[in-house]
Amino acid sequence: MLSKNQLKLVRSLELKKNRKRENLFVAEGPKVVGDLLRAGFLPHSIFMVEGGVLHIEDCGCMVQTVTDDELRRLSFLQHPQEVLAVFHIPSSPRQRPNSGGPSLSLALDGVQDPGNVGTIVRIADWFGIHAIYCSPDTADVYSPKVVQATMGSLAHVPIIYIDLVELLSHATCPVYGTLLDGDDIYRQPLSEEGIIVMGNEGNGISEAVRPLITKRLLIPNFHAGNETAESLNVAIATAITCSEFRRRG
Amino acid sequence: MLSKNQLKLVRSLELKKNRKRENLFVAEGPKVVGDLLRAGFLPHSIFMVEGGVLHIEDCGCMVQTVTDDELRRLSFLQHPQEVLAVFHIPSSPRQRPNSGGPSLSLALDGVQDPGNVGTIVRIADWFGIHAIYCSPDTADVYSPKVVQATMGSLAHVPIIYIDLVELLSHATCPVYGTLLDGDDIYRQPLSEEGIIVMGNEGNGISEAVRPLITKRLLIPNFHAGNETAESLNVAIATAITCSEFRRRG
Repeated sequence: MLSKNQLKLVRSLELKKNRKRENLFVAEGPKVVGDLLRAGFLPHSIFMVEGGVLHIEDCGCMVQTVTDDELRRLSFLQHPQEVLAVFHIPSSPRQRPNSGGPSLSLALDGVQDPGNVGTIVRIADWFGIHAIYCSPDTADVYSPKVVQATMGSLAHVPIIYIDLVELLSHATCPVYGTLLDGDDIYRQPLSEEGIIVMGNEGNGISEAVRPLITKRLLIPNFHAGNETAESLNVAIATAITCSEFRRRG
Repeated sequence: MLSKNQLKLVRSLELKKNRKRENLFVAEGPKVVGDLLRAGFLPHSIFMVEGGVLHIEDCGCMVQTVTDDELRRLSFLQHPQEVLAVFHIPSSPRQRPNSGGPSLSLALDGVQDPGNVGTIVRIADWFGIHAIYCSPDTADVYSPKVVQATMGSLAHVPIIYIDLVELLSHATCPVYGTLLDGDDIYRQPLSEEGIIVMGNEGNGISEAVRPLITKRLLIPNFHAGNETAESLNVAIATAITCSEFRRRG
């Protein structure tokens, strides 16, 4: 039986200020919850419908059985997925295990859309990106929408909210960014180590960060003189950039 | 003054069966509507708030002034954007103008999510893709959600709904597809001409289409032996594939 306080706590975690105060976030579905548990994220509470399955031996906390209706009331999804868990937000960024070799990281400079941030985390996971640094005005990766959009990849990539100007001023590796006046990414030497800055959906890389870019890149379009798309979505640009760095490694 | 019948017609175009019967679709915002008008799409009706601007000399039909409240009732957007237009669905696919040179096309085999289809149209536009062939079970490109997600790129890329088995059986160019048992895309020869098949979000390329793929490709991941993302979103995979074909051109 779900208590009123449990319901209230879970629902309150939709808002960033509450997540920050409680230091908790919500994840849903056997895949995402399972991936987070396996990666060592600490559960605060787990709610599962009867017959639900988590493919993990030790959850690290009691699993409370709820009815379909109770899960529906807890869930942030249109179609709730058997299990919902509340996790502690990790206090220090976890290292990507055995991510040996030269490290390539991403820095998100004011990426606003939760779907874009979630997709970027998934891309970073695929391409073995070492860490994602996020400016404080980037969408919160622990919001229910972003957690779900990462499809479990949140479990694999360390994510660090940090002042990017501070970070990049002290960087000893090349700092890449895609800018309108950059050089054709397909024809530039790209190092194996570096930080790739991705900017805001509407305004691109912020004025404060722009002077810290040491290698300006451009993803060229192929319009043959005709009208074409004016820009690429930031997640799409991230995918193309990561692919181009990795294929040369 | 907006009539009841006008409101009813526009709202009815949310459903595919109504779009098919009326042969009409809705587009919103000065950018998307302007791009479609400039590309020669035929308007059926245009509604604009007072003070709204369309940067085009001749719209091809009367522009009816509506109030903010009337636009809100017409619109499919959370934040309506000054102008909403109803267009005729083109009866025959328009050619990409001056798209000379070897042609590279996409074939979407059951891509379900409207956001993915919209993003793919935008990517195709960026990379100068010749045409997009869609299986009948691919999300309808004329649904309001897809039209908006294309950000105007719908105006630039011919889109053809067609039986893919029929089309690909008669293809004289290489037919590419990304499959789990494919060869590393970064290390394969890729022709300048060809059709690239992208599959359904959950099930990939359908069983009927799979035998028609002549070059099986794989986008490798870079996990260094650790757990990683299990798959890439279909729009992300499309972007990486198009980028890889184009950079070699």
